[in-house]
Amino acid sequence: MTLEAIRYRAGALQILNQLLLPHQTVYDEIHSVQDAYEAIKSMKVRGAPAIAIVGCLSLAVELRAGAGGDDPVTFIRESLCHLTSARPTAVNMGRAARELMEFAENESMEKNSEQLRERWAQTANPHVSSGFEMHVLHTLKSLLKGVSSGPVLKRVYCTETRPYNQGSRLTAYEAVAEGIPATLITDSMAALTMREMDITAVVVGADRVVANGDTANKVGTYQLAISAKHHGIPFYVAAPSTSCDLSLESGRDIIIEVRPPEELTSINGVPIAAPGIEVWNPAFDVTPHQLITGGIITELGVFLPSELQAALTGRLTAL
Amino acid sequence: MTLEAIRYRAGALQILNQLLLPHQTVYDEIHSVQDAYEAIKSMKVRGAPAIAIVGCLSLAVELRAGAGGDDPVTFIRESLCHLTSARPTAVNMGRAARELMEFAENESMEKNSEQLRERWAQTANPHVSSGFEMHVLHTLKSLLKGVSSGPVLKRVYCTETRPYNQGSRLTAYEAVAEGIPATLITDSMAALTMREMDITAVVVGADRVVANGDTANKVGTYQLAISAKHHGIPFYVAAPSTSCDLSLESGRDIIIEVRPPEELTSINGVPIAAPGIEVWNPAFDVTPHQLITGGIITELGVFLPSELQAALTGRLTAL
Repeated sequence: MTLEAIRYRAGALQILNQLLLPHQTVYDEIHSVQDAYEAIKSMKVRGAPAIAIVGCLSLAVELRAGAGGDDPVTFIRESLCHLTSARPTAVNMGRAARELMEFAENESMEKNSEQLRERWAQTANPHVSSGFEMHVLHTLKSLLKGVSSGPVLKRVYCTETRPYNQGSRLTAYEAVAEGIPATLITDSMAALTMREMDITAVVVGADRVVANGDTANKVGTYQLAISAKHHGIPFYVAAPSTSCDLSLESGRDIIIEVRPPEELTSINGVPIAAPGIEVWNPAFDVTPHQLITGGIITELGVFLPSELQAALTGRLTAL
Repeated sequence: MTLEAIRYRAGALQILNQLLLPHQTVYDEIHSVQDAYEAIKSMKVRGAPAIAIVGCLSLAVELRAGAGGDDPVTFIRESLCHLTSARPTAVNMGRAARELMEFAENESMEKNSEQLRERWAQTANPHVSSGFEMHVLHTLKSLLKGVSSGPVLKRVYCTETRPYNQGSRLTAYEAVAEGIPATLITDSMAALTMREMDITAVVVGADRVVANGDTANKVGTYQLAISAKHHGIPFYVAAPSTSCDLSLESGRDIIIEVRPPEELTSINGVPIAAPGIEVWNPAFDVTPHQLITGGIITELGVFLPSELQAALTGRLTAL
């Protein structure tokens, strides 16, 4: 079973509502750029590549329906700017916005607005990444063969990933669906698990990897990296090359989104914390490249943080 | 406002039900040893000293009501054994059980069963610790004066403490009630908070401190200690001397309680994780003494792990 997170066909866009998983599998219609903005902001859709895809396709939906009138380029510019602001930490939406804006400006010189509308959907669509997860799994298996004498990928331990519980809701759901032996733990049990459970590797995703290898990802990643280093366990970041942003020198330049207190103080609308308590809720943190001891797994190969820049600019061949 | 966790008067015992905090303040009647066992097991009462108090007083309630008949010593022995099994990681119940068993055996030689019943409540009662929290607060203020040039105890960051949320429910409730400036974070944000928020000290409790200073406490403590060490922040354990157990050499000898999967997969009965996922739910972890860089705060003073044994056996004067 494979989950289809985004459905797009002939101007109609639907997303799998990740807030309702794993208990309900519901597809929400996305009719407009504003629908997409709200879906990204409320975390109905998540993961840096998926955010970019939904944003671009929502614009295609509106353009096909006639939005922007005689001046679609201005409408496209304003929409892309709005969409990028929904999740500033993830790099992919901003990158897609720049590429598509350039495309729109070039096309608008040669074509009338009707032709431009038609071309948009065809251009936005190929941004859909395919098979990246399978690539990561394959790479991991190869890597683990090198460090482990036993059967590979014996068991995955996934953390809850508070406060939004992506781990217990989504990662756990995918592991059960794919038949991968998996055990759920709280975020606080990660270090204990590393010490007690013969952990071979720690693998995390990324919302943005910058030039020196510093990586922004879901909050808690930094703490996992510290624990992995303490136990001498290699720490890997898995990210498609489109999540790498060589325009930023170091992690200090990454904007970190701070989200509403309610994500900690209630769950499904039910209060779970003491009334009146203040809350700090940063959605991401930055892991310095020194802690990424295993490497960065991309579809181009696995690179040390120090090799990333050369690898992505074609000056280094994949391992 | 100070919270009264345990009420005992003339053979009637009530406990503040910590499962319903902070939204409801409900006192549950404890009529029997079995009531106390269930309250401890289900975490209605928590904290190593409080567990011992409730256990001993529940026995006083039953003894006053005539339990044990002509052979109260056998009834006391079986009851203490049952109560100790409810939370094996915490040392205090076991210690109290040994002391009270010795008392019961000595008394039974001199007194009839009726006199023994009367004496029991008077003996169990002084195990009620008083003012330990205020002592810790006072010690912390003194310690922080030494390391911080600004106003002391400016702000406390408390973690959620998954899966039972003692931090967001109880610590946060107490901080709000006592007027201490406090901010709630998820367990996964602790390392980020240490890096970004100018944290001066990390302080945790303890269910059991053994001879070499290794400390068992709520799961996640070990991970906090690793992060504190990574950031060069002193790490303190606050524990009354009754939580210290010199009979065990090192943390390897501590039994760790593993609790039901449901604590991770649902909250207030509502499912929050993917169906079918396996769960590992250790309730405690052991922090090795090397990571307790600040010291162990007791009512007798603050000691380095290496000094603890001498301090508790009277061979070292408090700092």
